[in-house]
Amino acid sequence: MQRSWLPISSDSDFSLENIPFGIFRSAADPSPRTATRIGDTVVDLARLAEQGLFDSVPGFDRSALSGPVLNAFIALGKSVTGAVRRRIQELFREECPDLRDAADLRGRACLPADRAEMLLPIEIGDYTDFYSSREHATNVGTMFRDPANALLPNWLHLPVGYHGRASSIVVSGTPLHRPYGQTEPTPETNGRPGFGPSRQVDFELEMAFVIGRSTELGGRISVDRAEEHIFGMMVFNDWSARDLQKWEYVPLGPFLAKNFGSSVSPWIVTLEALEPFRTEGPRQADPEPLPYLQGPAKSTFDIALEVDIRPENAPATTVCRSNFRYLYWSMAQQLAHHTINGCNVRVGDLMASGTISGPTADSYGSMLELAWKGTRPVPMADGTERRFILDRDTVTMRAFAQKDGLRVGFGEVTCQILPALPQ
Amino acid sequence: MQRSWLPISSDSDFSLENIPFGIFRSAADPSPRTATRIGDTVVDLARLAEQGLFDSVPGFDRSALSGPVLNAFIALGKSVTGAVRRRIQELFREECPDLRDAADLRGRACLPADRAEMLLPIEIGDYTDFYSSREHATNVGTMFRDPANALLPNWLHLPVGYHGRASSIVVSGTPLHRPYGQTEPTPETNGRPGFGPSRQVDFELEMAFVIGRSTELGGRISVDRAEEHIFGMMVFNDWSARDLQKWEYVPLGPFLAKNFGSSVSPWIVTLEALEPFRTEGPRQADPEPLPYLQGPAKSTFDIALEVDIRPENAPATTVCRSNFRYLYWSMAQQLAHHTINGCNVRVGDLMASGTISGPTADSYGSMLELAWKGTRPVPMADGTERRFILDRDTVTMRAFAQKDGLRVGFGEVTCQILPALPQ
Repeated sequence: MQRSWLPISSDSDFSLENIPFGIFRSAADPSPRTATRIGDTVVDLARLAEQGLFDSVPGFDRSALSGPVLNAFIALGKSVTGAVRRRIQELFREECPDLRDAADLRGRACLPADRAEMLLPIEIGDYTDFYSSREHATNVGTMFRDPANALLPNWLHLPVGYHGRASSIVVSGTPLHRPYGQTEPTPETNGRPGFGPSRQVDFELEMAFVIGRSTELGGRISVDRAEEHIFGMMVFNDWSARDLQKWEYVPLGPFLAKNFGSSVSPWIVTLEALEPFRTEGPRQADPEPLPYLQGPAKSTFDIALEVDIRPENAPATTVCRSNFRYLYWSMAQQLAHHTINGCNVRVGDLMASGTISGPTADSYGSMLELAWKGTRPVPMADGTERRFILDRDTVTMRAFAQKDGLRVGFGEVTCQILPALPQ
Repeated sequence: MQRSWLPISSDSDFSLENIPFGIFRSAADPSPRTATRIGDTVVDLARLAEQGLFDSVPGFDRSALSGPVLNAFIALGKSVTGAVRRRIQELFREECPDLRDAADLRGRACLPADRAEMLLPIEIGDYTDFYSSREHATNVGTMFRDPANALLPNWLHLPVGYHGRASSIVVSGTPLHRPYGQTEPTPETNGRPGFGPSRQVDFELEMAFVIGRSTELGGRISVDRAEEHIFGMMVFNDWSARDLQKWEYVPLGPFLAKNFGSSVSPWIVTLEALEPFRTEGPRQADPEPLPYLQGPAKSTFDIALEVDIRPENAPATTVCRSNFRYLYWSMAQQLAHHTINGCNVRVGDLMASGTISGPTADSYGSMLELAWKGTRPVPMADGTERRFILDRDTVTMRAFAQKDGLRVGFGEVTCQILPALPQ
């Protein structure tokens, strides 16, 4: 563990080994600027850049850190962003006097985290959502189709994915209103579709990655080199309205059930910071994937995931503990598949994993699975129970990697569901 | 018909009543700039703006016409863009001397169309594709499911739509490579998925509209006011690889079968220009749509559509003649539905109609339907036949509205399919 002249508690997500990137503003300066976080301190990287503290990095460009999003910085490439990250680690290391002893600059660049408002860190061109958890796909198939044939025929051969809505992705802390929509006709509705606020608002515990290197249309990304195109990762809540989804999704997939909003954590944790937590994903032998999907064994990361639900004015209940490494298809496989047809990707594109469910009933990544289609209500600490998310509930997801005293975390993505807006 | 001091042939798509907007560059000035087209002349609007020719328009901002995309101009709002359009009509009217007699400016601003390279005119935030032709959905349902129940239960109650890929939308004239991908396992492939270049590359004849006014997340657009949010329209070819689609699309919809590329015409024709061609769409009485989808009767436009296939070094064959007014769901209904859940839209978003098939076999908007799943090959002028699109075929779509001597057209979207790039 590297020690800093800034205080960092041992259980902080934001150790000196992390150095994530984000965008913040403050009451004192409302223009969105680039930042990192160390312990409980948000560090204004635009200020440090203005003072020339990164000018020693070959290929660095001060304007790339001026905001209002990280795209220009990410587009500099990993050799530059990685060197900037290491330079930040150096600047905050205990023995480094450059910033430690520059009281004025330190005062202008370092800010308590609770005084920084975190913003959406990237301009997202396209957003793709995958469906890469075998446990999740099996649970859904068991509930809605046939337990004996829960997985559809294509599932073990390719990372199923679909396009989502970029405009409605919001940063952690932004509340969302329960969506209106059509639902399946029932005897109650005289065979006409139902219409009104969704009664089955659900979270989906996911992680997302940010494209760090663009490709041209027609180009492909090989599974072996896919991580060169991934800048970093975030925690992602792919909000879903199950009743709207059930009625609308054939034959072209989910639409209004998803695009009323998706929530993302504010800090992008780089793949470099996650390297100590690299591990193997599930074995893929039966069937073996096609050659273009066969990559290195250690293709994933051991990242613990948790979901809390907090009713208004009541304590939170942790309803799910899962892990990123449960995913069957790796990020590299997702990206190789996404581009095998020549589809281009652009810096800032976001690709989410799909719901990350684990093998046990307390590791399922959605209320649909945790309450098993409403048949097993989830008990809450305040004595109530949940089948889906109720108005004014706040859902918080956390992600962190921890090993041998080293911790690299993502912070959290939190979002309150507000009542539907009247028509 | 308004007469211009510029020559405009009577069959030109670009009459003085049209005044579409686009982005071009030329060998003489390679920076992308805003333009309109009148007859065979491309008019550099950035040059006219620099000379103050639009300063009389309240709310106009010269920088909005400087390019490299139309988003800033469109964001000025219809009161401004409409007034700019009318001012352009005035400037080019026979009796108006302002530009007619200013030889130097005229020389710098007016360019033969064949010397202008047209570019993608907007930065597309999100792209949505609908599925709004009853005839197309019925044909597909008849071929792949049950002729007696060709339409899925939701189809007559809501405009089915799904999200597409914005990054791979290209302007007319950009060739695309045949995509690779996985296909359904067959006895030939020993029960494993097939893999290689798609054998079923198809066009889809569509029109697309461009969002002209943004909404906030949580906001809704009412069906009565939806057209206030639509800037204009384009012709759109939603390329599809049917064999990839068949294997990948359950349960979350088409993905790699679509996102290898979509082609769009370069000129955005405004709703104002299309107003003389406004007409009623198909009757929606059985069932009646829910109230949020009930809008004005005259909700569509009479726009003739044509598709040509041209093999390399051979004459073109017109394989389809259809009309925009065949669509069951109007653009206003599509937009009201898209936002009923609070999903936000942004200036520059693109929404496509879905394949526009008509009632007769020569009006089907895809090869899948024209050749009826390969069972009725389409004869070509050079003596060959087509079930799907072959390498080096060029597909061209045209759209125009014509009535009482008035013509407002879209020009064309053309694209050649090149052989698959080797892996």
